[in-house]
Amino acid sequence: MDFTFSERVQALYERVAAVLAEAVYPAEATFAAALEADGRWSIPPILPELQARARAAGLWNLFLPDPALGSGLNNLDYAPLCELMGRSPLAPHVFNCNAPDTGNMEVLWRFGTAEQKARWLTPLLNAEIRSAIAMTEPGVASSDPTSIVTRIERAGDSYLVNGRKWWITNAAHPDCRLLIVMGRSNPAAPRHRQHSMILVPMDAPGVRIVRRLTLFGYDDAPFGHCEIALEDVRVPEANLVLGEGRGFEIAQARLGPGRIHHCMRLIGAAERALAAMCRRAASRVAFGKALAEQGSLRELIALSRIEIEQARLLVLKTADRIDREGAKAARAEIAMIKVAVPRMAQAVLDRAMQVHGAGGFTEDFGLAQAWANARSLRMADGPDAVHLESVAKLELARHAGANRPPVDAPGGAP
Amino acid sequence: MDFTFSERVQALYERVAAVLAEAVYPAEATFAAALEADGRWSIPPILPELQARARAAGLWNLFLPDPALGSGLNNLDYAPLCELMGRSPLAPHVFNCNAPDTGNMEVLWRFGTAEQKARWLTPLLNAEIRSAIAMTEPGVASSDPTSIVTRIERAGDSYLVNGRKWWITNAAHPDCRLLIVMGRSNPAAPRHRQHSMILVPMDAPGVRIVRRLTLFGYDDAPFGHCEIALEDVRVPEANLVLGEGRGFEIAQARLGPGRIHHCMRLIGAAERALAAMCRRAASRVAFGKALAEQGSLRELIALSRIEIEQARLLVLKTADRIDREGAKAARAEIAMIKVAVPRMAQAVLDRAMQVHGAGGFTEDFGLAQAWANARSLRMADGPDAVHLESVAKLELARHAGANRPPVDAPGGAP
Amino acid sequence: MDFTFSERVQALYERVAAVLAEAVYPAEATFAAALEADGRWSIPPILPELQARARAAGLWNLFLPDPALGSGLNNLDYAPLCELMGRSPLAPHVFNCNAPDTGNMEVLWRFGTAEQKARWLTPLLNAEIRSAIAMTEPGVASSDPTSIVTRIERAGDSYLVNGRKWWITNAAHPDCRLLIVMGRSNPAAPRHRQHSMILVPMDAPGVRIVRRLTLFGYDDAPFGHCEIALEDVRVPEANLVLGEGRGFEIAQARLGPGRIHHCMRLIGAAERALAAMCRRAASRVAFGKALAEQGSLRELIALSRIEIEQARLLVLKTADRIDREGAKAARAEIAMIKVAVPRMAQAVLDRAMQVHGAGGFTEDFGLAQAWANARSLRMADGPDAVHLESVAKLELARHAGANRPPVDAPGGAP
Amino acid sequence: MDFTFSERVQALYERVAAVLAEAVYPAEATFAAALEADGRWSIPPILPELQARARAAGLWNLFLPDPALGSGLNNLDYAPLCELMGRSPLAPHVFNCNAPDTGNMEVLWRFGTAEQKARWLTPLLNAEIRSAIAMTEPGVASSDPTSIVTRIERAGDSYLVNGRKWWITNAAHPDCRLLIVMGRSNPAAPRHRQHSMILVPMDAPGVRIVRRLTLFGYDDAPFGHCEIALEDVRVPEANLVLGEGRGFEIAQARLGPGRIHHCMRLIGAAERALAAMCRRAASRVAFGKALAEQGSLRELIALSRIEIEQARLLVLKTADRIDREGAKAARAEIAMIKVAVPRMAQAVLDRAMQVHGAGGFTEDFGLAQAWANARSLRMADGPDAVHLESVAKLELARHAGANRPPVDAPGGAP
Repeated sequence: MDFTFSERVQALYERVAAVLAEAVYPAEATFAAALEADGRWSIPPILPELQARARAAGLWNLFLPDPALGSGLNNLDYAPLCELMGRSPLAPHVFNCNAPDTGNMEVLWRFGTAEQKARWLTPLLNAEIRSAIAMTEPGVASSDPTSIVTRIERAGDSYLVNGRKWWITNAAHPDCRLLIVMGRSNPAAPRHRQHSMILVPMDAPGVRIVRRLTLFGYDDAPFGHCEIALEDVRVPEANLVLGEGRGFEIAQARLGPGRIHHCMRLIGAAERALAAMCRRAASRVAFGKALAEQGSLRELIALSRIEIEQARLLVLKTADRIDREGAKAARAEIAMIKVAVPRMAQAVLDRAMQVHGAGGFTEDFGLAQAWANARSLRMADGPDAVHLESVAKLELARHAGANRPPVDAPGGAP
Repeated sequence: MDFTFSERVQALYERVAAVLAEAVYPAEATFAAALEADGRWSIPPILPELQARARAAGLWNLFLPDPALGSGLNNLDYAPLCELMGRSPLAPHVFNCNAPDTGNMEVLWRFGTAEQKARWLTPLLNAEIRSAIAMTEPGVASSDPTSIVTRIERAGDSYLVNGRKWWITNAAHPDCRLLIVMGRSNPAAPRHRQHSMILVPMDAPGVRIVRRLTLFGYDDAPFGHCEIALEDVRVPEANLVLGEGRGFEIAQARLGPGRIHHCMRLIGAAERALAAMCRRAASRVAFGKALAEQGSLRELIALSRIEIEQARLLVLKTADRIDREGAKAARAEIAMIKVAVPRMAQAVLDRAMQVHGAGGFTEDFGLAQAWANARSLRMADGPDAVHLESVAKLELARHAGANRPPVDAPGGAP
Repeated sequence: MDFTFSERVQALYERVAAVLAEAVYPAEATFAAALEADGRWSIPPILPELQARARAAGLWNLFLPDPALGSGLNNLDYAPLCELMGRSPLAPHVFNCNAPDTGNMEVLWRFGTAEQKARWLTPLLNAEIRSAIAMTEPGVASSDPTSIVTRIERAGDSYLVNGRKWWITNAAHPDCRLLIVMGRSNPAAPRHRQHSMILVPMDAPGVRIVRRLTLFGYDDAPFGHCEIALEDVRVPEANLVLGEGRGFEIAQARLGPGRIHHCMRLIGAAERALAAMCRRAASRVAFGKALAEQGSLRELIALSRIEIEQARLLVLKTADRIDREGAKAARAEIAMIKVAVPRMAQAVLDRAMQVHGAGGFTEDFGLAQAWANARSLRMADGPDAVHLESVAKLELARHAGANRPPVDAPGGAP
Repeated sequence: MDFTFSERVQALYERVAAVLAEAVYPAEATFAAALEADGRWSIPPILPELQARARAAGLWNLFLPDPALGSGLNNLDYAPLCELMGRSPLAPHVFNCNAPDTGNMEVLWRFGTAEQKARWLTPLLNAEIRSAIAMTEPGVASSDPTSIVTRIERAGDSYLVNGRKWWITNAAHPDCRLLIVMGRSNPAAPRHRQHSMILVPMDAPGVRIVRRLTLFGYDDAPFGHCEIALEDVRVPEANLVLGEGRGFEIAQARLGPGRIHHCMRLIGAAERALAAMCRRAASRVAFGKALAEQGSLRELIALSRIEIEQARLLVLKTADRIDREGAKAARAEIAMIKVAVPRMAQAVLDRAMQVHGAGGFTEDFGLAQAWANARSLRMADGPDAVHLESVAKLELARHAGANRPPVDAPGGAP
């Protein structure tokens, strides 16, 4: 066991941190002001400028395990960099490491045909276009993905796609060109072989943005979360990914790294909130003394540190296990971090808000929006209840054998 | 002891409930649609229509203890009606029982001169105008109200008001005409005699709305929470309330009933959320069975019921104590409900959101906005930490006497 | 609604409190020392002395609703007196109001024949004998009382009782003469008509104390919790209570008041712990200041007060509803207090222990044993899970009707 | 970073686990029965037998970093073995790795003179004698160790020791020969140079066991926790450890590894409880289905797994940091695990108890006693409040610099 960074990770960490400190944090206010000034649904020019800087610095597509197209880093090595990017809502976009483009790029890189790669992956890697993933549906419990009812039906050498999707992040982005749609193509097949993923151009006839959803009042402009109607959308069969009935297989593959990313970004947000909390506590005076002298607040600061440390270690261990043994072997850990990390982030952000007084609820400090994001991640990719059930099932199974010795295997998790 | 309603309260309860069911709930969507259609800062016509209906039904100004001008109900009797109104964000406005107009009307009714009453109280009671209260300031810890720095300075037979206030609810309302401003008028006086309250017309030169704040992204249109600059605002001395240096006395007087109102409304919101949670759980199917069959969800339903019951009883006891012994005797309870009830409401609303899936975060169910409101009430009127400190101080004091017997007084609270 | 005591209750409250302060608290150390000196399983003489004092003061059998044999108080009026008795583990015995004798006396009073009353009830009311109730069994999940397997089988004009019971409180008491045994007498009957209750003399052949159980290390001497074997115990048919198959009916009847008693005693224990916590905090110095000056400890004091208040109100409301509408109508509340109150008491006692340092875990302050008792009450009469399920079921049912209006009935609970 | 065991640790882990499964678990009942049969304060013969087996297997003094006298393992490598030993209360004694003998051996090994080592360390390493450490005092807040008032006063070429100590684990052991006493020797020195540690033979005149304390009713026989009076105990000056005024220095040195040990053992206890919980849930039936099918229980199983994983990782990281950078650099982590791990263990053990029904509170499953031990560790070595304060102080300090960049150092903890 060893809890230190490799030299390469340490160096990248410092370089990403430097770009954040020098360019990204100062740009947050510029970005927000541009949104206010120019309408909320165009891209403020500061973003492409920052992207150019990151790319020039060699800090681009760090998430991609492909050493030619990306960084070649594995999950464990990328994780601390991802955490850093989580400290600013802008940063993942700056380094071309934002969801769901990362997951979509991974899918195309891993499963795409040469043609699909040329058309979609290359411009995504260059941040010339953006993409979205359409899984969740308003009418069914998306916690159970087999309940997805959007139809992908063969019609000659095309597919017709019909359905209603929501919470489609990025779909409001002016450069969004691609929608990866999950739908039921083979209703007669076994339960996990009924669905496929297909590449739908955003400008295909029949694709319609019904509305932009708000997440606790936030529209997340200019990226947005949309509700989308798919009405007789005709897509060539070459747009199918991997083959009919392989939707779950693809979804499964993108899941592990996706969780690591989401969780590490939340840890970054929690770290920034804790720093803000400490500084505010040190500088704000009430009843004649600094808030930082209040014992109960000091306890919350300490608990936040303890919770962040534990959450980070669990995510890193999960990344390590995915890298060594694959996502399936690490499925208990992947479920665990999905439960543990958003809860931790919510708690830390909530405390930080409280220390900032009523200002904590506004956009002045970014805390309320970060909190809303953390809250939403207790639902995205399935609610807590589903992941707890996965962990419980595995845990019960390992104690189920009649002759099972009372001593458990090293490391604990099933 | 007796835990049942009086006949009069029971009858009023049923009548208010009927108006809610028949007119208010159905109007919520209409109201929201009108805001979208007509810009967010004008009053949708459905509101005055509903107000007319409530007034015609004799369900008007129920909060006011004056039997001639209002209902003549005491706090304990009004509380269950207030809870009902809390079930819809629209309802308090419909019955002319919304904050901060209620508190402002109470102040004018209790402390206003005949002239002040004629100019402000009468139109407020008729819902012809709206009002705001300006306490909180962005630059200081408002948890400690003695830190308020807005200046109210005598200048001949007028006062000059200068300062910056924020979280001024109602100030964005097109009919808002009155701002009750708390400021420091007598800096040389003892700590709780330095501040005064003064009536500032919204259209007085020097009153400027700097921006409309958002609360977790919500603008609370068309009522709004504003940041306001007061720059050399000249107000006649007749606009002072009660006298120089009496600001805390007035603030104290409005505090008790105000807390009861806020807390009962939160309980109403929690009841509605629990009902929504139960219905959703019964109708939504995942993994082949209704959510309501999940044991862990059933536990959350039960815990929500248990927490709501306890919170309501504590508020009702507090109301009773205010009515019998006055707000000062009940100050421990008044502090307790401020801590207990928003936490309960947050918990219940959070669970209800989770049962609604990602939809729970949108405006489709009203849950996310109700949650944001509950969260904000852990800060409004002082953060939890301040109220916990008040309770602790009183509790420690009652055990402090050297000869104090080990048996405490009936009823428990200090 | 009214949250004050009646004159009679107020007077009784003061008299019970006086006996506690003057006689019971000072006797606790005497009682403990006598147990150490004389072996743990005889009754220290101070107890009958205190009983005589209480009886002479007219504070005897206060729990019994019969005005001739007891106080004639209803549940709501007895509750505050029961809380007072909960402040000392000795007090319920002093006032002849200890479990399970109270529940047994109620059963005999309500359902006993004249002969049963003469033989058992009269000496119990005089504290000449003690009794136990034998429900729980080691081999089955007693959370589901229909799983009880002890057999009560007719054999001529007698019954033969066979089974194994545990957690039989009072059975180790030297004066224990009566065991009320629940067992299956009619296995072919419908599920809730299979069991009966029968009066078994402790000295009947075949009744054997297998061992005295400990509850977290505590033997609860001299009353004890025993595991008991019943082997071919022959009991005359006249010892059956109420009739064959009526065991659940009897259990149900004793349940409501029993819960009120348990819960109010826990509230009393919590009040005493909070008082001890405050005094310790005020007097103990660490790092140069009194513990009571630590902000985080002050918050715990405040939270304890808030939680106690809410718990007490819920129990009082439950008692009121039992008195007005009967235990069946109040079954949601009866389940709620069973969940809420032990949790509250555990929390308050745990905090009080922590303030007492390592001494808090010893017998020096009584806190650890009171905590263990509170913990055990999350299991006695069924684990939390069973009661939460009851509450959830009722709550879901009230929202189940298709045409159910969105406004709920007054008072909230189903 | 790397989350796997080295080959040596893996091999030792398997060998310790084998001894546990084959010899230690089966001996638990034997040990308990012997205590009952032979009086509680002699050592059941099974213990030396097991010790001989462990020693023969080369699994002896694994805790000691000295490769000649012990295993030569560092903290990180010893930690998983220590966790295994925590699964049985007997195991630490079997492997001669029990507190406080381990800490005492470390002190003697690190700071002892050749003479002190010969007289005390050698027989301790052979388990021929046992020892105790006397820090805590009943009269002062031991959370603040500078408040220790026991006097160590020079009298010619001896020291006279006077004071009162409690919670002296091992002191009731029939082989206990050594008491390491912390006391104030130099009252005029600076605050952390006033105290010394001195070796006091248990049979020195003036050493008197006042009583054996109980921890939630448990006497922890045959090791015990004693209150001890030290009355004019004369000790030769050669018994002083390291020198006058160096008591804190010694206490500090033993602290880091001691915390790792305590925490890892608690994690072992939690793992065993989780295993017991899963098996019980799978086998126990209530209301017609296995407890393991209850969704709420499954969630508790999952949460337990999540909490255990996180706690373990934090302790391992702490051990690694102590090994690499020393205890001082790791002081934030050392404080963090002291708060986090006992809370986790309490939670897991509490859930496991609840699943075991009322039996969970008895000695039948070992859960209640393990819980009591976990609870006591929230106080031993200082209460949570002290450790949270340490973490908070360090955290606030790292954010205090005016020019501090908003990006924090890798790894997070201060």
